Amino acid sequence: MRQIGRCRAHTNIALIKYWGKRNNDLFLPMNSSLSLTLDAFYTDTSVTLDSNLEMDEFFLNGMKQDKDETKKISRFLDLFRQTANSDVHAKIESYNHVPTAAGLASSASAFAALAGAANTAWQLNLDKQTLSTYARRGSGSSTRSIYGGLVEWNMGEGDISESSYAIEIDDASWDIGMIVIAINKNKKKLSSRIGMKLTVDTSPFYPVWVTEAKNDLIAMKEAIKQKDFIKLGEITESNGMKMHATMLGATPPISYWEPDSVKAINKVKEIRNNGIPCYVTMDAGPNVKVLCRQSQMSDILDKLKESFTNDQLICSAVGEGIKQLTDTEWSY
Amino acid sequence: MRQIGRCRAHTNIALIKYWGKRNNDLFLPMNSSLSLTLDAFYTDTSVTLDSNLEMDEFFLNGMKQDKDETKKISRFLDLFRQTANSDVHAKIESYNHVPTAAGLASSASAFAALAGAANTAWQLNLDKQTLSTYARRGSGSSTRSIYGGLVEWNMGEGDISESSYAIEIDDASWDIGMIVIAINKNKKKLSSRIGMKLTVDTSPFYPVWVTEAKNDLIAMKEAIKQKDFIKLGEITESNGMKMHATMLGATPPISYWEPDSVKAINKVKEIRNNGIPCYVTMDAGPNVKVLCRQSQMSDILDKLKESFTNDQLICSAVGEGIKQLTDTEWSY
Repeated sequence: MRQIGRCRAHTNIALIKYWGKRNNDLFLPMNSSLSLTLDAFYTDTSVTLDSNLEMDEFFLNGMKQDKDETKKISRFLDLFRQTANSDVHAKIESYNHVPTAAGLASSASAFAALAGAANTAWQLNLDKQTLSTYARRGSGSSTRSIYGGLVEWNMGEGDISESSYAIEIDDASWDIGMIVIAINKNKKKLSSRIGMKLTVDTSPFYPVWVTEAKNDLIAMKEAIKQKDFIKLGEITESNGMKMHATMLGATPPISYWEPDSVKAINKVKEIRNNGIPCYVTMDAGPNVKVLCRQSQMSDILDKLKESFTNDQLICSAVGEGIKQLTDTEWSY
Repeated sequence: MRQIGRCRAHTNIALIKYWGKRNNDLFLPMNSSLSLTLDAFYTDTSVTLDSNLEMDEFFLNGMKQDKDETKKISRFLDLFRQTANSDVHAKIESYNHVPTAAGLASSASAFAALAGAANTAWQLNLDKQTLSTYARRGSGSSTRSIYGGLVEWNMGEGDISESSYAIEIDDASWDIGMIVIAINKNKKKLSSRIGMKLTVDTSPFYPVWVTEAKNDLIAMKEAIKQKDFIKLGEITESNGMKMHATMLGATPPISYWEPDSVKAINKVKEIRNNGIPCYVTMDAGPNVKVLCRQSQMSDILDKLKESFTNDQLICSAVGEGIKQLTDTEWSY
C-alpha cells in the first residue's frame, strides 16, 4: 500500500489574538480569535503512507528530523490513523517557505498543511471545518490556516473538540495587506505555549483580557461587514496591545519586545500620524506586523526603509486556504 | 515686610505607583503609593515675601519665567496665603539639581521644596504631614518628597484633602540604592497628567490595577518590615510593569517606552540572572530606574556600561526629607 497526500497551507496573523487555553490537551482556547491569512509565508507538506515503514519518518526542508521532533508529528497523525482505523506509518516531507530573516517558521502553516496532506493520504475526505478541528490539535493557530482571507476561530463549547473550529468570514479582497518587520532575536524567548500558560495562571488582568477579546471580536466582525479598514486597524492594534499588557501583568512579567520592536511601533505610529492608515500587531516574539492597505504598501515601505533594512521588510498579500498540490506542483 | 523661607527637597521614585486621580482638583489618588527618596536629585527653592511686589515673580535656575509658568506657582502659593490670611506677593527662586542627561526635572521635588519654603516664609509652622497635603495640590508625587527614605502616600478618604498625606515608614538604611538609566527622548510624549486621565477613562484593566496596587502595597510594607530586599525588588518590578500594562490597555494604547528602555530592561534582567539582585521600575517617560543594593551598585554599573554611556548612568543613595536651608547653605 502506498498512498500520498500533498498540501500547501499559508500562515496567518491573528488580528484578535488567541492567548490561553481552557483545555491544554485538546488545545481549546479561552476566547474566539480572528486572523488574516498571508500569501508570503507557507508550508508544503507531503504524507506518504508506506506499509513497509516501521515508524513515521519526518523530513523538514530535506533534513531528517530526530526522534523527539518526529514523535510530535506521529502523535498528530495518530488522530488521522484513528479516524481511518489504520496503523500504517508514513513518510512526511515538509518545506517551509519563509524569508530567512523573518524567523517566522510558524507552526500555524505547518500543522494545517500536515492535516491537509494526511486527509488526502488516508482518503478521509474530511471537510475543511472538521479539518480545522484536527489542525487545532497540532497547534492552536493552525485551526485558522485551513482557510484564506479573514478567518474566525470559534472557541466552541466546554470540552467538545468538534465545537471549536474555524470558518472563513470574508475573502479580504478589499485592499488589505500586511508588512512583516523582522526583528532579529538576540536570545531565545519563552515559547508561546509556556507564555500563555503563565499568563492564564498568574496575570490578574487575564479575566479582563477574555472579556475584551470577546467584545473586540464582535466589533471587528462589524467593521469587516462594513469594510471599514480604519476600524479594522484600530481594533487590531488595540487588541494586540491588550494581549501584551495582559502578559506584562504576569508574575514574573512577560515581554517579547526587543528594542527594535519599539522602534517599529513608534515608526508605524509616525507614518499613521502623517496620514497613511497602518496598524501594528505583535505575537509571542519581537517581530512587528503592520496591517495596511495593499495599495499603500509601497509608500509605507519607503518610510519603513528609513529605519529598517530591505531584508527586514517582507510584504504580503492576502493568502488562500489550504490546497492540494498535484505531482507537477510538488517541485521538490 | 520681607520674610524669607529656603528649602531643599529631593525627588522620589515610586515603587508602588501612583497612576490616576479620584479627584482631579484636589489631586486625590485612586490608590495609595510608596516611594524611595533619592539623594542625587533635588530642588532648592526660596520664597521671599515682599509687600512691594504687585504679583509673584518666579525664577527657575536664574531665569525669570513667563506668565503661564508663574501662574501655576501663584495658584499653589494661594493655599499658603489663604492659611496665613495674607495677600502679600512673593519672589520665588528655584534651582533644580538634576544631571542634564537625566531629563528628570521632576515636579515632585519642585512642589515639595516650594511648600517647605512657603511654610517658613509665611511662618505657618505646618507639620510635615500637613505640609504633604499642601505639596500634593501642586503635584501628586510631591506629597511623598516631604520625607526621606521609604515613604507611603496614604490615599485617604472620599474628597477629604487632609486625609490624603504621606508618612515615612522606613529610613531605608539597609543597603538600598538606585541607578537611573537616562534614555534620550526622541520626541515629546504625553504628560503624566493626561496619560493617567486617559488610562482611568479608557483602560479596561484600570479597576484591576487599583486592586493590584492595594495588594502590592500590603505585601511591600511587609517586605520592608522584614528588610527583605529581594521581595521589595520583585514587588517593585511587578507593580511598575502592571502600571505600564494598564496604560497599554487604554484607547488608544499608551506607551512611554523607547527602544533603549527595552534594552535597559533586558540588560537588568540579564544582570539579575547572573546573580546580582536588581529590579527595574519606570514612570511616565522612557527612563529606567534600577533598584539595587547600595553595596552592589558599582558591580551593576560595570555591567550597565557595556550598554550605556557614563553620563546616562546616575547613581543615587537614599535621600532625606525636606530641610530648611540657612543663609550660608543657600549658595546661589
